[in-house]
Amino acid sequence: MKRIYLDHIAGTPLHPAVVDALLPYLKEKYGNPQSLHAVGQEALQAIEESREKVARLINAGTSEIIFTSSGSEANNFALKGLALAHQSGGKHIILSSIEHQSVLHSAKNLEKFGFSFSYIPVDRYGRVDPEDVHKAITDETILVSVMFANGEVGTIEPIGKIAGICRERDILFFTDAVDAVGNIPVDVKALNIDALSLAGDQFYGPKGSAALYLKKGIRILPFIDGGIQENGRRAGTENVPAIVGLGKAAEIALEEMESRAMRVKTLRNKLIERLPQTAEHVFLTGHPEERLPHHSSFCVEFVEGEAMLLNLDMQGISASSGSACTSRALKASHVLLAMGIDHALAQGSLVFSLIEETNAKDIDFLLEVFPPIIERLRKMSPLYTQYLEEKKK
Amino acid sequence: MKRIYLDHIAGTPLHPAVVDALLPYLKEKYGNPQSLHAVGQEALQAIEESREKVARLINAGTSEIIFTSSGSEANNFALKGLALAHQSGGKHIILSSIEHQSVLHSAKNLEKFGFSFSYIPVDRYGRVDPEDVHKAITDETILVSVMFANGEVGTIEPIGKIAGICRERDILFFTDAVDAVGNIPVDVKALNIDALSLAGDQFYGPKGSAALYLKKGIRILPFIDGGIQENGRRAGTENVPAIVGLGKAAEIALEEMESRAMRVKTLRNKLIERLPQTAEHVFLTGHPEERLPHHSSFCVEFVEGEAMLLNLDMQGISASSGSACTSRALKASHVLLAMGIDHALAQGSLVFSLIEETNAKDIDFLLEVFPPIIERLRKMSPLYTQYLEEKKK
Repeated sequence: MKRIYLDHIAGTPLHPAVVDALLPYLKEKYGNPQSLHAVGQEALQAIEESREKVARLINAGTSEIIFTSSGSEANNFALKGLALAHQSGGKHIILSSIEHQSVLHSAKNLEKFGFSFSYIPVDRYGRVDPEDVHKAITDETILVSVMFANGEVGTIEPIGKIAGICRERDILFFTDAVDAVGNIPVDVKALNIDALSLAGDQFYGPKGSAALYLKKGIRILPFIDGGIQENGRRAGTENVPAIVGLGKAAEIALEEMESRAMRVKTLRNKLIERLPQTAEHVFLTGHPEERLPHHSSFCVEFVEGEAMLLNLDMQGISASSGSACTSRALKASHVLLAMGIDHALAQGSLVFSLIEETNAKDIDFLLEVFPPIIERLRKMSPLYTQYLEEKKK
Repeated sequence: MKRIYLDHIAGTPLHPAVVDALLPYLKEKYGNPQSLHAVGQEALQAIEESREKVARLINAGTSEIIFTSSGSEANNFALKGLALAHQSGGKHIILSSIEHQSVLHSAKNLEKFGFSFSYIPVDRYGRVDPEDVHKAITDETILVSVMFANGEVGTIEPIGKIAGICRERDILFFTDAVDAVGNIPVDVKALNIDALSLAGDQFYGPKGSAALYLKKGIRILPFIDGGIQENGRRAGTENVPAIVGLGKAAEIALEEMESRAMRVKTLRNKLIERLPQTAEHVFLTGHPEERLPHHSSFCVEFVEGEAMLLNLDMQGISASSGSACTSRALKASHVLLAMGIDHALAQGSLVFSLIEETNAKDIDFLLEVFPPIIERLRKMSPLYTQYLEEKKK
């Protein structure tokens, strides 16, 4: 059976050039970058070159990149590290209500330390209104966190405007850009971003490779205490192969992002247009235009996301019903609920996120197998039977 | 020039079988273990098999292994996570004075939250006296942290006795076993260990692969908040290739550790015996017998560690002067100072830590090039000139 992987948001395959780039660092170049001898120096040079490549991708300075082991770690680092380092200025933080769990749960944890939070609503497309951020700012506000793009519904937020408001009020602005960086242009300088998280496995880099961008001069509390790695801000032996892979992925993204995006967007648009026509009660979620180029997401009424995933999987199609980080929790997505989608409909969430390899045949195959799956599943749904009966009356 | 790598403590090369085991997870098996589809399930199965292998290496239960991205992260996790989760029982923690920076700095950070610390001294060999731990325990003590073996001087601590005292008093016992696990037998059950950190790059596994063992039933605060990975205790997409590599390294270590240790110990013993004979004022540091089999460490009077390292490096020999995590800080080691070695002598620290590939010729070569290097460096040392003049009188 051919595998059709449409789960970009759970992690992309590695670009073959990324594997080639990192392999020597798993084999003969195994040095510790902190070692003073030649074997260590070689590793140090490799991670510094990667730092430069990652910086270039988001138009940051090289010294503004701190490597971490995942997007979640970078998000924890940003929220906790910035809040605790700047608490003398106030203890109020503004978040969008559709942030990733790693941001929301970090915030929850900060409540224990006396921080309070305002959660900004989103519209039915999952967009934050910058004016709402503006209104939520108090004299105690030290930090605003709004994600760049949402992985569950694909919506891209008006980051430039929000960051601009924060810069004007001298409030730190952090954005979880894990789903965005490497897929759409992100320029931290032009957008006035103070801190940003990114992850390699969202743009054909390896798992375990991620980074926090932090604008020069901004204080942060180290997240992992210990050695002097990452300028004393993140201790622990550097994961050299992962970092090298991240650098290579960043380099390739800078060159190929635009053409990649155009290609997947064409296929994605077909899916967005056609899928809701293949069966009744299939709705697009997220913004119709302001969305990640590889991302399509839907709610399918009267069917549970998990059942659809398993049936699609039997046809060789890998999809998801939202964030992989919480997929096993099988709860309705807080993102969909925040967008005003009701609880029952939110259970029928389905995300098809395309990768570089996706082709027109894959999309046609999906459009072909989707309707009978939905039909079969609905026949087993008491809610659907009830709906049909009510319709008859 | 042939490279002779004698810096095991900064990280070992990967075992070729480890590279082979993890490669498919960098290529075709790129799934996210949290995804419900087949690509994800394959990754999930791989990390659960690894968990079993790592558990077996230290005689733990499978559910007692939490993967992390480095030994430093595992140490931070243990110290902060256990202290904060058990603070209702008291706020006093006992540490050895030779713990790794990631333990010591985590402790320093906990002071802000009202925790107090007792630091247990060590003898001239770097050994903690269990009786000192016993005496330091107060009604407020909730946690004792003594490392299994010290990476800078190789000394193995009397962990069983210390852990036994803690178990008797119902106090949590954590041991940073990063330098020990995979190199000497470690049995968490037999030794009454409650929590333990280990890292793959100390036993031919990949960088970025590490774990925290936590005895079943012991509460801990998550270190990275977010998704439900690692049973909700460590969020973030699992680094599947690194975890698979760690599992393979653990499997190999269980089989080969004993023969490996015997081989390197023979060569190491030759170094310990001969090196101090090749030049005056060269002293073994650490315990003569109770030490890691691959580890030899010395203090060389009237010469700085860094200068020796660079000169050895020019001959193709990679060595270190202590922990790689602080090598660039170029400060006298807190471990050597705690052992009563004076500040000037501690500057001349030198560690040769052997790897599997080390052979008799390598050791002979080192013994051959070492004396002229020391002689040349001493000729440039004002302290040595002064010493010679005083000797003449």
